[in-house]
Amino acid sequence: MLSRSRWLCWNLGAIQLGNSPVGKTRAQGQPVPLSAPPPAGKRLSQKPRGSGAGARGSPPPAAFCRPAFLQLTPEELRRADDHTGRAVQSPRDGRRRLPWSTGYAEVINAGKSQHNEDQACCEVVFVEQRPSPRGWLSSREGSGEKGFYFHYWALFDGHAGSGAAVMASERLHLHICEQLRELVEILQDPSPPPICLPHDTQAGSADPNQMSNAEDRGEVLNDAVPRFHLEKAVSHESLVIGAIENAFKHMDEQIERERASQHLPGGCCALAAIYLMGKFYVANAGDSRAIIIRNGEIIPMSREFTPETERQRLQFLALLRPELLGKEFTHLEFPRRIQPKELGKKMLYRDQNMNGWAYKKIEEDDLKFPLIFGEGKKARMMATIGVTRGLGDHDLKVFSSNIHIKPFLSCFPEVRVYDLTQYEHCPDDVLVLGTDGLWDVTNDKEVAGVVMEVLTSYEPNDPCRYTMVAQELVVRSRGVLKERGWRLANDKLGSGDDISVFVIPLGGPGNYT
Amino acid sequence: MLSRSRWLCWNLGAIQLGNSPVGKTRAQGQPVPLSAPPPAGKRLSQKPRGSGAGARGSPPPAAFCRPAFLQLTPEELRRADDHTGRAVQSPRDGRRRLPWSTGYAEVINAGKSQHNEDQACCEVVFVEQRPSPRGWLSSREGSGEKGFYFHYWALFDGHAGSGAAVMASERLHLHICEQLRELVEILQDPSPPPICLPHDTQAGSADPNQMSNAEDRGEVLNDAVPRFHLEKAVSHESLVIGAIENAFKHMDEQIERERASQHLPGGCCALAAIYLMGKFYVANAGDSRAIIIRNGEIIPMSREFTPETERQRLQFLALLRPELLGKEFTHLEFPRRIQPKELGKKMLYRDQNMNGWAYKKIEEDDLKFPLIFGEGKKARMMATIGVTRGLGDHDLKVFSSNIHIKPFLSCFPEVRVYDLTQYEHCPDDVLVLGTDGLWDVTNDKEVAGVVMEVLTSYEPNDPCRYTMVAQELVVRSRGVLKERGWRLANDKLGSGDDISVFVIPLGGPGNYT
Repeated sequence: MLSRSRWLCWNLGAIQLGNSPVGKTRAQGQPVPLSAPPPAGKRLSQKPRGSGAGARGSPPPAAFCRPAFLQLTPEELRRADDHTGRAVQSPRDGRRRLPWSTGYAEVINAGKSQHNEDQACCEVVFVEQRPSPRGWLSSREGSGEKGFYFHYWALFDGHAGSGAAVMASERLHLHICEQLRELVEILQDPSPPPICLPHDTQAGSADPNQMSNAEDRGEVLNDAVPRFHLEKAVSHESLVIGAIENAFKHMDEQIERERASQHLPGGCCALAAIYLMGKFYVANAGDSRAIIIRNGEIIPMSREFTPETERQRLQFLALLRPELLGKEFTHLEFPRRIQPKELGKKMLYRDQNMNGWAYKKIEEDDLKFPLIFGEGKKARMMATIGVTRGLGDHDLKVFSSNIHIKPFLSCFPEVRVYDLTQYEHCPDDVLVLGTDGLWDVTNDKEVAGVVMEVLTSYEPNDPCRYTMVAQELVVRSRGVLKERGWRLANDKLGSGDDISVFVIPLGGPGNYT
Repeated sequence: MLSRSRWLCWNLGAIQLGNSPVGKTRAQGQPVPLSAPPPAGKRLSQKPRGSGAGARGSPPPAAFCRPAFLQLTPEELRRADDHTGRAVQSPRDGRRRLPWSTGYAEVINAGKSQHNEDQACCEVVFVEQRPSPRGWLSSREGSGEKGFYFHYWALFDGHAGSGAAVMASERLHLHICEQLRELVEILQDPSPPPICLPHDTQAGSADPNQMSNAEDRGEVLNDAVPRFHLEKAVSHESLVIGAIENAFKHMDEQIERERASQHLPGGCCALAAIYLMGKFYVANAGDSRAIIIRNGEIIPMSREFTPETERQRLQFLALLRPELLGKEFTHLEFPRRIQPKELGKKMLYRDQNMNGWAYKKIEEDDLKFPLIFGEGKKARMMATIGVTRGLGDHDLKVFSSNIHIKPFLSCFPEVRVYDLTQYEHCPDDVLVLGTDGLWDVTNDKEVAGVVMEVLTSYEPNDPCRYTMVAQELVVRSRGVLKERGWRLANDKLGSGDDISVFVIPLGGPGNYT
C-alpha cells in the first residue's frame, strides 16, 4: 500500500527525499515465527497458518505467505505470486471453509512490491471468561465453560515489508478476544454495565454473593443504579467498542515490542468486522473500506484515514509538539512547495483551525516542507506516507533524517456499529470489505452494481455465490492485461495494487450461528 | 447561555466549585462605546445602534440594549426587559426593516440573568476593494467604486455578561468585510484564485499590467496555471470560508485587546449567515443552530460545539499540554466523580483516542476532576462552561483558581455552504437561525412543522409571514406562564433561556438583491 509509488519524489533541501530505502532494502514478506506466545483465546475452524511453502516455525528468509484459509499448494502459491499472470485466488472449497459462506478473493499487485502485501483472516473465536483470582466463578458455575463466540473477518494492507501485516493477521483477533474476556459476564447481563468494579477483581468476575467485605458488596450490588448527582450511562455496545479500540493498541504495542526479534518490518492498515451478539462492529484504521449493500442501498461502514482526512489532527499535534517536526517541516499547509525567491510574497495557506484558505506573507519558516502535502492518492504526511492510521511503522522515518513518523500515525480504529436485528435481511444483502486496491478504481456504486448483478445469476441458497461476487470484484478492479498494461472494461488503467475482498452475506444460509 | 444554571454546583477539592462569581458579580448588559474605530466597510440599511434608552456614545452603566433594527421605544425596551411578562419582540415594521423580508423575534429569559444576553445583527454590507498602495486601481478603474455586497444575519448568545455579545454583534460583519476586501478582484474573476501574489501587493490588487518587474509579472500572469509537479487547486468558495474563519479570529482578538478599556465581560456563541454571490455561508461557533427547511425537508446547516461533541479535541490538547490543567483536572473521562476510597478499584474511562469505554484500575491521578464531565445540557468543560467555541471569555477561569478556560475554547467557526442557485426555491423555503433557547425545547422537526403551518396561513407574497413564523417559534418555545412556571402546550417546561430566531426566506419576494 505504501509502495515506491506512494513515496514522494521531491528534493527537500537537507532531507533529500526520494524513493524510500525502506521499501527497497528491507526484507519483505517474511512471515512471523510463532515463538512469542499468543494471548489467550481459542480459534475455531482453524488450521496452522502456513505459507504453503513449508511450516511456519523456521521460515526461509523472504518466504511468501498467504492466508491459511486459502490452503494453497506450493504450485498454487507460485501462481499467486506471479505479477504477470495476476491469477485471482479464492478458498478452494468456499462452501465449507469460511463461516456464513463468506466470499473471498485476492490478487497480487502488478509489480509494485515483490509479494502480495495484503493479508486476510477469517475466524470464529470463543471468548472464555477469565478465571477469577479468588476462584469465585468455578464455585458458582461449576466446571462449565462460560463465554461466547464472535465471528471475525479482517484485511491487512501492508507497506514497506509484510511483517506487520502478517503478524496482525495472526494476532489481532486474539487481542480482541483478550479484551473481551474481561467483559464476559457483563455483556451477558442485560442490566447496565457497572460503572465501578471492586478491588482486585477483573471486569466480569464481580459476583456480589462472593464479596469479601461489605463495601465491595454495596458497590457492586447498587452500581447499576445511579447514586450520584451526575452519572453517565454506558452501554454494552460502548464496552465492545472500547475493547476493540484497546485491542488495536495492544496489537500495535506487540509489534513494537517484537519487531526486532521477530523481524517485523513495515506497517499495515487494518480493517476488521466483528459479529457479536447480533451486531456488526466494523473497525477501520487506514484506507481500506467497508460498505453494506442492503436492498440495493449503500451504507458506508468506515471512512478512510489519510493526510487529507486527518489534516487537522496532524496539524494540531505538530503545532503543540513542534519538536516532532525536526526543523524540517511546517505545520501549515500550502497548495504547493514555496520557492526561496518567493519570500515576502503572499501565498495561500491553511492552519489547523481552518477549513478554508487565506493569503499570508511568506516568511522564512514557511520555506520548510509542509507537514501535509499533495492531493487525493498522492497526499503525503511528511512527504513519506499516504495513510495516517494503522499498525506497525515504529521504525519509519523521513528519508535520510531522524524524524519519526509514528507519533503522527495513530493505531486507533474508528468503530462503526450495525445492528443486524433491526432489519430483516435477504440473501442479497452483504457487507463488503476491500483494501484500497479495490476502491481506487471501483466506487461504492459500481461495487453495489457488481454485487447485485452477480448474485442474481446464482440461486439464493447457493453458498458459492458470495465467492463469485468477490472474484468478480477483484477481476473488474484488476482489469485485463493488454499492450498498455492492465486495463478495465472502459479502457482506463486497472488497479496495479494488491486487491483483497471479503463479501459477507447478512441474510444468507447458516448465518448467526 | 452560560447562566448560573450552566455552572456546575460541585465540591471540587481544592477548587471549591460552586456558582460562578463571574455570572453574579460582573456588571451585565453594558453596551460597548464606539470609541474604538471600526474596521473599514459600509453598512447599509443601518441606523445608529441604540439602546432605545438614549444615544450609545455615553451609555449609563449597565444599560440594557437590544438590536438596533428593533427600534424599541423606551417603553418597549422596558417591556422587553420584563422577566415576568416575557413579551415577544419583533421589528415594528418588518415589511421594510430587514432585507429579504426576513422574520425576527426574541424574548428575554425567565430570570436566569438580569437582561437578555442574546444579541442579533442583520446588515447589507458593501465590500470596497482596498486601495492599492501603488495607486494601480485608481488609474485602471478611474474613480468608480469596485466591490460587491454581502447580506448578513447573525445571532450572539452571551454568557457571564453581555459585553462580548454586544461588541461582536456590532463588529463581526465589519471584520468579515475587512477580510473580503483583500479578495474583491479575485472573487470577481472566474479563473481560479492565484496561489501566490507578488511582493508588496494585497490579495485582489494584483494587476499584471502594472507590475514593476518581470518576475512579479510572470508570477501573476501564469500562477493560475499549475506549473508545479504537485499543486492544489483552491476554490473561490474556500477563500470565502477562510475569510470568515479569520474574521472570527480577529473579532476574538479585538475583544481580547479591548476587554479592559471597553468593559467587555463574558463571552458569546456566534452564529452567522452570509449570503454572497449566490451562496449561503453559515458559520457557527457555539451551540446555536441553523437549519434549512426546503420543500418540507430539513437540511442541517450547523452543528453544536459542546464538551461532548468536542471531547476528543479537548482531551488531546489536555494530554499534550497537561500544564493547562493546573494539577486539578485529568484529561481522562469517567462516568462520574471518583471517590478517594475507590482507589485501586476498576472504573470505566475513555481517553482522547477512544469512542468506546473500558475499565481501568483507579490511580491517584484519576481522583482529579475530569476535564469533561456530565451529559447533554449538563455537560461541562473543567466544571465551568457548557460550550467549547465562541468569542470572548479571555478572563474566564475555573472558580477560585488560576486555571484559564480560554486555551480550550476555540473562536473558530465551522462554515457550511449552501448554493442557492442549485435549486429553485419557493417562498416557503427558509433558513432558520436560533439560539439554544429555541432548540432546547423544540427540535428540528417541530420547527419545520411550525414553519409550514404558519406560512400556509399567509399569502405567499405577504412579507409579514416570516416575522409571524419567528414569533410563533419563540412563543411555542417560551410557552405560557402558569402556576408551575412557563409551560408548553404539552405541559412540559418551556425554555427559561433567552430565545432569538431569524427566519430567512430563500425564495421570497425581493431576494438576491
